[in-house]
Order: sequence, then structure tokens, then C-alpha cells
Amino acid sequence: MKKLINSPETVLADSLVGVAAAHPELRVDHVNRIIYRAAPTRAGKVALLSGGGTGHEPLHGGFVGVGMLDAACAGAVFTSPTPDQMLEATKVVDSGAGVLHIVKNYTGDVMNFEMGAELAAETGIVVSVVVVNDDVAVEDSTFTAGRRGVGTTVLLEKIVGAAAEEGRDLAAVTAVARQVNESGRSMGVALSSCTVPSAGKPTFELPENEMEIGVGIHGEPGRRRVPLAGAAEVARQLVEPILADLDFTGAPTIVMLNGLGGTPLIELYVMYAEVRKILDAAGITVARSLVGNYITALDMAGCSVTILKADDDLLHLWDAPVNTAGLRWGI
Amino acid sequence: MKKLINSPETVLADSLVGVAAAHPELRVDHVNRIIYRAAPTRAGKVALLSGGGTGHEPLHGGFVGVGMLDAACAGAVFTSPTPDQMLEATKVVDSGAGVLHIVKNYTGDVMNFEMGAELAAETGIVVSVVVVNDDVAVEDSTFTAGRRGVGTTVLLEKIVGAAAEEGRDLAAVTAVARQVNESGRSMGVALSSCTVPSAGKPTFELPENEMEIGVGIHGEPGRRRVPLAGAAEVARQLVEPILADLDFTGAPTIVMLNGLGGTPLIELYVMYAEVRKILDAAGITVARSLVGNYITALDMAGCSVTILKADDDLLHLWDAPVNTAGLRWGI
Repeated sequence: MKKLINSPETVLADSLVGVAAAHPELRVDHVNRIIYRAAPTRAGKVALLSGGGTGHEPLHGGFVGVGMLDAACAGAVFTSPTPDQMLEATKVVDSGAGVLHIVKNYTGDVMNFEMGAELAAETGIVVSVVVVNDDVAVEDSTFTAGRRGVGTTVLLEKIVGAAAEEGRDLAAVTAVARQVNESGRSMGVALSSCTVPSAGKPTFELPENEMEIGVGIHGEPGRRRVPLAGAAEVARQLVEPILADLDFTGAPTIVMLNGLGGTPLIELYVMYAEVRKILDAAGITVARSLVGNYITALDMAGCSVTILKADDDLLHLWDAPVNTAGLRWGI
Repeated sequence: MKKLINSPETVLADSLVGVAAAHPELRVDHVNRIIYRAAPTRAGKVALLSGGGTGHEPLHGGFVGVGMLDAACAGAVFTSPTPDQMLEATKVVDSGAGVLHIVKNYTGDVMNFEMGAELAAETGIVVSVVVVNDDVAVEDSTFTAGRRGVGTTVLLEKIVGAAAEEGRDLAAVTAVARQVNESGRSMGVALSSCTVPSAGKPTFELPENEMEIGVGIHGEPGRRRVPLAGAAEVARQLVEPILADLDFTGAPTIVMLNGLGGTPLIELYVMYAEVRKILDAAGITVARSLVGNYITALDMAGCSVTILKADDDLLHLWDAPVNTAGLRWGI
């Protein structure tokens, strides 16, 4: 294993020191492993909290800032944060207008966020929850009952963050979150495994001439292993299941071509070109595009496609100013 | 070789199709392989042109937009663009106020940009040139007479882009460019090789327990191969040669911790934490930070550190609005 770390045991703590040093607009609670905004939540603004295992950066800590999350809880690599972390974070960000918990659908995250929300409710904080489950690859999976939560989480945090920043109340913010989750679909492919620092070796073995279609962001198995193919064919194998799952015609869409961590940007643009050809041929209107590494799986080579069926309101919220390490415009 | 491409021969052309599809604010000349702004250069504004071999994305095409470059010429992977491309790009972006060519110090780039500038001068366009040579690792190297141009190029394109946007004239813009180059220093480390698509195999072999200190962005040899070490020790081996080369005390600095393409963001933050500890101990003031993948070497695992000795004017230009695929704020 070759990694730029001090030790597998300290990788999360050490990285949080770096986050605090690089981003004066953020604060880090090193004990509870929470990244939050330096400026307290404005009175009356609904707060957004997410979190999950480390290893998917910039998700979630890289999306804390004006226009997106108010805080993110960081678990160990590929491990859910604890209910205590969620409670602490919820208390830190609540301004009295309530807190939306954004949870990717993995058993540990769902369970711990549920307990965190209960603990917060006992302190009198109103918590609402959205569980993201947009991965069309498999219905149940390692760590998951139901579909996994992947790329739509990125788009949801941006869009719902803007809704909260506008001053919409908790019910309205939650409704936007549910709309985004119901309207977004994703599918990914791995060309290589990732290596979890504490394991010290690749999570799975993938022969030199094969790829894993429908892979999860922790290296969970996908739909099938198939021979390596060209970008056009890979795009087809990712986009067709998404289009089969939801009708994306008749509305503007937001399309994300996401790198899983180990794939160069030039390849992501090659893939994006192929995805667009398929969408154009299918009569789907792409209103906004995002190409880059936004929800990753450590050093995994591969990518995922996310398509979100939007409307005027979602596009308006997408375009609103945002100031985070991972997504920034207008500020 | 596992890559998300259609074929090694079409990777550049295919990626440019993706760039055009993803970025409506840009235009792509697919024949001459030039990425330029959709909006023509404002009359009186000095235009900024850069370019080089593909494989370092987001550099340079990802830095075309308001506040940075006006155009970028893309060569094949790790191969200089041709003088004809530079001539065409220079003609496209010139508004009459002249064009600054930003050239990384590699023999092919320097030679071809020189010829491109001569051809442009014959058409009556005033061209100025800055050659970036900030890599302290080695004096001469594969493809290079003198020091290689690396990370400072990113900071230079941002800062000088802002100077041009402000309406400074060609002499003033060129002076800022020279100041940035003279004030910036970089050094990198590789944990793995990269794989050029047309070669189909790693550029070099690096044993499982070794790293290459001072590596170039094409996999050129660095200063030495040493046993794999922890992040704190790697940071020391990168930062000490930089600090030995220039006195960074007594001025605000801009520090970039750059990923070479295959290293997860969490490791870059771990490295940034260690770099900051060294700079703090050395009494160096860090005014601005940038952590992420900005000048890459395809899928190489590793990182580089760039430190720029700034002043009030350079910080003011750094903070100015920018709207590119790779760097964006304030717009």
C-alpha cells in the first residue's frame, strides 16, 4: 500500500488538521470530528447536516459552507459516524428553525443518524431526515437494504442548501430534498479496486481485462463483471439502466460525470462526451453539467453518472451562489 | 492498461468534445485543438494564452475563462502543441492590446511557442512571453534545459489573469507574470508512475517500498528514490528544498498542495497539514491555501507543493473573481 499518510490510525484526524488549516471559513471539532461553518447559522435558517464514512471526499466535508451544508460528521474510512457525533453537530448548527439530516442509504449511516435524530429530538431540536437511495445498480447490497445512496447526494446538498439559504422552512426544505432524491438516478463503474488504509490491500481483485459495472462507492459488488470496453460502450452500460428506471424526457436535467478518485480528468471528459451523445439521441435536455471528482471511493479508478430530472425551481436553486471547498460559484 | 477512453489515438479529440458539451461558456476549435472563451476578448484587454501537452488537467484548458486564460492550446498527451496552434489561438484572442504567452519550461513547448510568437508577430500582433521554471528539484532534466515549469503555472495563470481583466497593459501584465514566476517554487513526489495511453504501460517502474522525490509531471526522474515514508517526512523532503531556494519570510504566501491525479483528496489534506506545520515552525505566513488536483500527471499517485511569496497586489489579484472549470469564485 502506497499512501501519503502518517499511519492508517491517524489518517482521519490528520486530514481534519489539514482541512482546518486550509479553510479559515470553516471550523473543525477535532474531538467529535465535525466540520462546520465558522459563522453560526443565521437565526431562522434551516440547518443542513450530513456525514458518513471518510474516503468519499470532497463529500461531505468539502460541501460545508454558504449555500450547501452547515456541518458534516466524519466517520473513519468507510465507517459511519456515531449518533453522538450527529447529536453534537445537530446542536452546533441548529438556530431554532430545525435541522435536515441528509443520509446516504447504508445500514450503519441510517441506523446511527436515526439514533442521532432521536437524541437531538430529546433536546428539543426539530429534525427532519432525507435518505438518499439513487443507485440503480442493485436493490440490496453489502451494507444496504434497498438502493445505495451515491451521486444524487452531491446535487441534493447543493440544491437543498440553496433552498435553506433562501429562508424556506423545514417542511419546504425537506420537500425539495425528497423531490431531488426521487428525481435523481446514478450508476458507476470500477476499473480498479480501492485500498482502505487500515486494510492495507485492495478491497477486491479485478483482473486486468475486466471492469465492475454498477460498483458501489466502497467497492461493493455491482451488477456484473464484464470485459474492459471503450468509453462509448461503458457509457451505454451506465446510462441505459438509468434511463430504463426513470423517464427523463420533457424536463431539463442536471448531469454529473463523477470520478471515483483515481481516474484522470481527461478520461472523465471523454466519458462525458459519450454520455451526452446517448442523452442527445434519447431526446433528453441537459441544462447543467458537472464533470470532476465529487463523490469518490479513495483511489478507485472509475466513474459514475448521475442524472437529475429538474424543473425551474431546482435549476434556480442549482444556480444560486455556493462557497465550499468542493463546489464554489457566485461568492 | 485500464482507461476510460475509446482509443489512445482519439483520447484528446474525444475529451475536447466533452469539454465543449460540459461548458457552454467555452468554445472548442476541434481542428486546431484550442479551448477559448465563448465571449470575444474585450477591446483593450490583454489576452492570456497558454498550452502544452494534454495529461495535466485541469491545466490548461480547465483554466480558460473570465479572470484567467483567454485560450489554451492542447497537444497530444505529454506532447507540445504546434506553432500553428499557437498562431491560431493568438489570432483568436487578440483584441489589439497584445497577447501574453505563458509557457512551461520544457524544450518542446519553449521552441514551439517561440515559433508561434514569431508567426503571430508577422501578422502584426504584439506578443509577450513568460517562461515558468519553478521546480527546484533538478536544474536540467528530460525535456528541459533549466528548471521545469510546474505548480507556479497555476497560481500565475490566476493572478495574471486578474491583472489582465483589470485592464493593465501588456507590459504591466508581463511584469506581474515575471514577478510570480520569480517568487514561486515547487517540488513534487511520486508514489507511482503514470501510464500514457499510447504507450500502454507505466512510464517508469517504482518498487512497492519506494517513492521518487522531485519527480516531474511527465514522470521525469527527480532527485532521488527513497524508501516510502510517512506524510510528515515526505512533507519535509518537499518543503526543505523549497525553503532553501528562496526566503519566504516577511511576506504573505500562497500555498498550493497539488495532487498529481491518482491520490485521494484525504491524503492531500494530510499532506497539507504536515506542510503547514513546517511553514509555521519556519515563521512563514500563509495567507491563502489551495488543496486539490490542479496540475496533474495523468493517473500518477503523488503530490507537489508550491509556495508563492506574494504581496498586497498579488493577494488582491488572487482574490479577484474567476470563472473557469478548474478554479471558480466570485462569479
